[in-house]
Amino acid sequence: MLSEADNALLTQTGPGTPMGTVFRSFWIPALLSKEVPERDGTPVRVGLLGEKLVAFRDTSGRVGLLEARCPHRHANLFWGRNEDNGLRCVYHGWKFTVDGTCVDMPAEPADSTYKDRLRAVAYPTHEAGGIVWAYLGDPDNVPPFPAFDWTFLPEGYSYATKRLQQCNYFQNLEGELDSSHNYFLHREFQLPENGILAPEDMRRPDFYIAEAPHGLLVVVKRNLDSGNRYYRITPFMMPSYTIIPTEQAADEPDRFTAAVPLDDHNMWGYTVSWRRDRPLNEAELEEINSGRVSHAAVDPDTFIPLGNLGNDYLIDREAQRTRSFTGIPGVRVQDLAVQEDQDGPVCRRFEEHLGTTDRAIVATRRLMLRAARQVQQGTLPPQRDNASSYRLRSLAVEADSSTPWEDLWRERQGADNPDALPAKLEEVEEWASVDSE
Amino acid sequence: MLSEADNALLTQTGPGTPMGTVFRSFWIPALLSKEVPERDGTPVRVGLLGEKLVAFRDTSGRVGLLEARCPHRHANLFWGRNEDNGLRCVYHGWKFTVDGTCVDMPAEPADSTYKDRLRAVAYPTHEAGGIVWAYLGDPDNVPPFPAFDWTFLPEGYSYATKRLQQCNYFQNLEGELDSSHNYFLHREFQLPENGILAPEDMRRPDFYIAEAPHGLLVVVKRNLDSGNRYYRITPFMMPSYTIIPTEQAADEPDRFTAAVPLDDHNMWGYTVSWRRDRPLNEAELEEINSGRVSHAAVDPDTFIPLGNLGNDYLIDREAQRTRSFTGIPGVRVQDLAVQEDQDGPVCRRFEEHLGTTDRAIVATRRLMLRAARQVQQGTLPPQRDNASSYRLRSLAVEADSSTPWEDLWRERQGADNPDALPAKLEEVEEWASVDSE
Amino acid sequence: MLSEADNALLTQTGPGTPMGTVFRSFWIPALLSKEVPERDGTPVRVGLLGEKLVAFRDTSGRVGLLEARCPHRHANLFWGRNEDNGLRCVYHGWKFTVDGTCVDMPAEPADSTYKDRLRAVAYPTHEAGGIVWAYLGDPDNVPPFPAFDWTFLPEGYSYATKRLQQCNYFQNLEGELDSSHNYFLHREFQLPENGILAPEDMRRPDFYIAEAPHGLLVVVKRNLDSGNRYYRITPFMMPSYTIIPTEQAADEPDRFTAAVPLDDHNMWGYTVSWRRDRPLNEAELEEINSGRVSHAAVDPDTFIPLGNLGNDYLIDREAQRTRSFTGIPGVRVQDLAVQEDQDGPVCRRFEEHLGTTDRAIVATRRLMLRAARQVQQGTLPPQRDNASSYRLRSLAVEADSSTPWEDLWRERQGADNPDALPAKLEEVEEWASVDSE
Repeated sequence: MLSEADNALLTQTGPGTPMGTVFRSFWIPALLSKEVPERDGTPVRVGLLGEKLVAFRDTSGRVGLLEARCPHRHANLFWGRNEDNGLRCVYHGWKFTVDGTCVDMPAEPADSTYKDRLRAVAYPTHEAGGIVWAYLGDPDNVPPFPAFDWTFLPEGYSYATKRLQQCNYFQNLEGELDSSHNYFLHREFQLPENGILAPEDMRRPDFYIAEAPHGLLVVVKRNLDSGNRYYRITPFMMPSYTIIPTEQAADEPDRFTAAVPLDDHNMWGYTVSWRRDRPLNEAELEEINSGRVSHAAVDPDTFIPLGNLGNDYLIDREAQRTRSFTGIPGVRVQDLAVQEDQDGPVCRRFEEHLGTTDRAIVATRRLMLRAARQVQQGTLPPQRDNASSYRLRSLAVEADSSTPWEDLWRERQGADNPDALPAKLEEVEEWASVDSE
Repeated sequence: MLSEADNALLTQTGPGTPMGTVFRSFWIPALLSKEVPERDGTPVRVGLLGEKLVAFRDTSGRVGLLEARCPHRHANLFWGRNEDNGLRCVYHGWKFTVDGTCVDMPAEPADSTYKDRLRAVAYPTHEAGGIVWAYLGDPDNVPPFPAFDWTFLPEGYSYATKRLQQCNYFQNLEGELDSSHNYFLHREFQLPENGILAPEDMRRPDFYIAEAPHGLLVVVKRNLDSGNRYYRITPFMMPSYTIIPTEQAADEPDRFTAAVPLDDHNMWGYTVSWRRDRPLNEAELEEINSGRVSHAAVDPDTFIPLGNLGNDYLIDREAQRTRSFTGIPGVRVQDLAVQEDQDGPVCRRFEEHLGTTDRAIVATRRLMLRAARQVQQGTLPPQRDNASSYRLRSLAVEADSSTPWEDLWRERQGADNPDALPAKLEEVEEWASVDSE
Repeated sequence: MLSEADNALLTQTGPGTPMGTVFRSFWIPALLSKEVPERDGTPVRVGLLGEKLVAFRDTSGRVGLLEARCPHRHANLFWGRNEDNGLRCVYHGWKFTVDGTCVDMPAEPADSTYKDRLRAVAYPTHEAGGIVWAYLGDPDNVPPFPAFDWTFLPEGYSYATKRLQQCNYFQNLEGELDSSHNYFLHREFQLPENGILAPEDMRRPDFYIAEAPHGLLVVVKRNLDSGNRYYRITPFMMPSYTIIPTEQAADEPDRFTAAVPLDDHNMWGYTVSWRRDRPLNEAELEEINSGRVSHAAVDPDTFIPLGNLGNDYLIDREAQRTRSFTGIPGVRVQDLAVQEDQDGPVCRRFEEHLGTTDRAIVATRRLMLRAARQVQQGTLPPQRDNASSYRLRSLAVEADSSTPWEDLWRERQGADNPDALPAKLEEVEEWASVDSE
């Protein structure tokens, strides 16, 4: 069980907070590329880590991400004119480029040097896989961009969506890491044949957690009644990224997710689906847009999921009785139901009671808290420098019980990925003790 | 006039507050029975005393009232599966019975004793008169259930409704006890014949207040021009129950009311109408559902009254000029208009100016404050143990001036009710001094 | 740049605050006369300086402005009966006249003197130019009513409107004083002929600021390429009134504006258009009601402008590209866009960066802060006593460079206005230093 102080440390990411500094030391998703489709097009409001920002694509195609308030008298640059490689404030015409340089102050005297002495707050951006990423940390210490597997692929091989999730980011992150709830929250069944609970051998997993260059590897092992083993391996990548295990047997696309704080009570949830071998096909895109899987179907203007707390996530109590563990349609919306109202927008973890299936969550909390404590001492998280270690897929596969999981893991990552499993992996069992013990 | 500190003591009922402990030492209404009509049916969210709860009727017909958050990682049990005498959390399948026992943790190891060591927070319930009552206090010290008059009657003789009232509970309680405002706020008239003010003899009552085993008796006496006396006697029953005087001459049903804090800015208002002699008839039920009397017509999903602050309580200013003191339709909605916006959701009583008609209110405040101070010393309110004293009707009757009110009162209560007027009743005049003096 | 403490001093106007005392020492607009059109008509809720008030026109035609809560037990007098020269509370019938005298307590004993000892909080009002003005300060020290130019005119020569603006009053006041933004925010243009920026000689003005009996005179001078000068003179009149320069060449009506705090996050914006020479004609009234000029088109019930933050001020991004600096229709709505979301409802002025065009704003802040500091010492602002100095028009005119602005100013005010430019005007340049220097 977490202390109340550690719960605050874990969940608060505004300017000046330790965990805010952790997030600001990494490249994080800021918006979808398709939100700023055109050069010189309409600017977009962006909320990130408690900051109000505005994004725009300039005449040269670069995406700028500026503090929303004009440095002059704080009119919102969202109303600004996006023209000739800069955003011009409508109040008095001050104009800024994507890097925050002030290039015009049309009401100041012609010989004024004021504009050379003043800059807008601007954050560097990087577009990859349909997402505009941003770095909000020390401008003199920009880390390399992570080598996400899907950034090596041609257009069409990956597809990114986002949703507004109305809770603290960590509630979603815990769900992404929780390889156990899959057999409850997301279960569909037929009565009376297969019952509302999954078979015993699927419900009671063993956990092995290792620290890795990108964060953690969560290895979940189930001893099947058949004698085989079923492995699910979820990489946690700092600061808040995971790759959800997708069934290899079903040949499903891989799925990356990110939980990015908008503020301490709201977050942006990103999901990227990708295939290494070919473009996503129509059936796969249809499934993504349907909201049946990890992508939510959202309102296109607000990014609020169509199933949400205001409509009780479209729960169907009759369906809950007869064929669905929740009665809520769609995997992502099922997650929202348990995460958005998890004791309110910020879960009081100091009053919870953890079980054996929560070991990955406990380890992740401790990794994140260690990072927050280290930035208070002036040390940035080392994972930010391990860009190549982010090139990963997840794993969900049944195997002969004699095959070591490390072999399965290396094979899954592919021959061209030597960083997939480093020589030395430290077990972090002492981090993962739970209340049930 | 109350001090600012006493006003806070009176109005704050969340966990850990003195007045919260007073409320938690009594049986209080939690929801209507008809909100959980079916065994294994849909759970219901319940807000009570600042706590978030969930109610469900189990396979055996018992009503459970659990803390809404699962003890595990705080998913809301409202989404839970109500199945086989228990509520099962959809996140990881933990299952709890109505008394909070954990009967299943399907993802824990088969030999785990964790579920035997963990309980959900559960409160005992008792159904009576169409209401599910709950006791939120010390589980080792449950008081007897009060002998409300209408709990002795067959089905159909009583009828209960509830409404969400958007103010602190004490503003409503004061109104229920205020036997004077009836001749103003609720007055209908004809112009020019009978004028907008009631006759003088009805407007200016005398007050006599006595402490009784259940709380207080408020005896209001009016000397009529005819030489007769008109009595209205309102019992106040701890912690926040009253029986509104109904005209005996009109043979109206009796009416019980309860003001139950949802939180410090919202309350549940319950009204029970009943007859001792026969089932409520169609005309009486029609009047209840019409919202014309003490029952409000409400939205069936939210229990928000149809006349509310958002629509100015449907006030008709022309009607106000010509035939209604307020122009607001319905007795309960008239009450809402003066109570919900009584200097905001929490009236600043430390800035009011009391008159002679406020003696009952002053005495009630002092009784409640005494109870709040006593629980701070570790003594629970004695009224909780006097269950039989709660079996009361109110009184509103014209009588010869030579008849003592005590005789009228005893007769009204009936021969089988020896506790209706105890031998010793202490007058509490010294509690009831007002600013007008 | 302002300190954080001074920003709070400038923007907080609730009861007991220094700036609240400054506002309470002046006559301020409370509501439009047409909101209380009839004698004995419907009362009106009024929010002013963080206080909740109720206005009503009595049988004699006088407008009362009372604290909304009845002094008895704080029922809202808005529900009251407006009858026979007084407002009667619906809860217990207490009745008050426009000056707060209690004339009836119908439930108190016939010989009670209580009503003679109790008063409602009532503020004096004064109707002028379609506005009900109020004085919320020391009742024993009422200042003379200001001699606004339009109060000397017959009916029909002036027209007043109001709007609810959702930000702190000072953000609007700064906009009214900012004679520079006119050539940016409000600019319409044709492409490619005249470009999106106004000609250089119009964009870069010189400022001269003088202290005057009513507050300040802001003199803005532009040296035109033609050799002429273009002057715009804006009077600032304490506590928050301005007269916007209107083009004399275009023979436009004059325009007075007031920024009146509702609370610290909302304000009432008043605009009065007037002509000295004749009634406003149909074209002028049509322009006022259209929302194209300084008057906003508003919802008639809430006074919320039709273009507002909720609908992105009806911005048309295509129009912004081709013919309008903002793409937002209407001068007032353009102002709202930059003022209502100016770093939120209360601008953090301690983080801004001022330019040379902000001299008037800086001087006004300093004048207001001086007044706030003086009331803390017990000295009321002297401007409140200088009623005759408020009789002013603004000025916006092109002139030969040899003509002194003082001559233009005196001529504009008219022969019957000897107070238009006092003998001694103190320059306040030392108050107006900006960050750009």
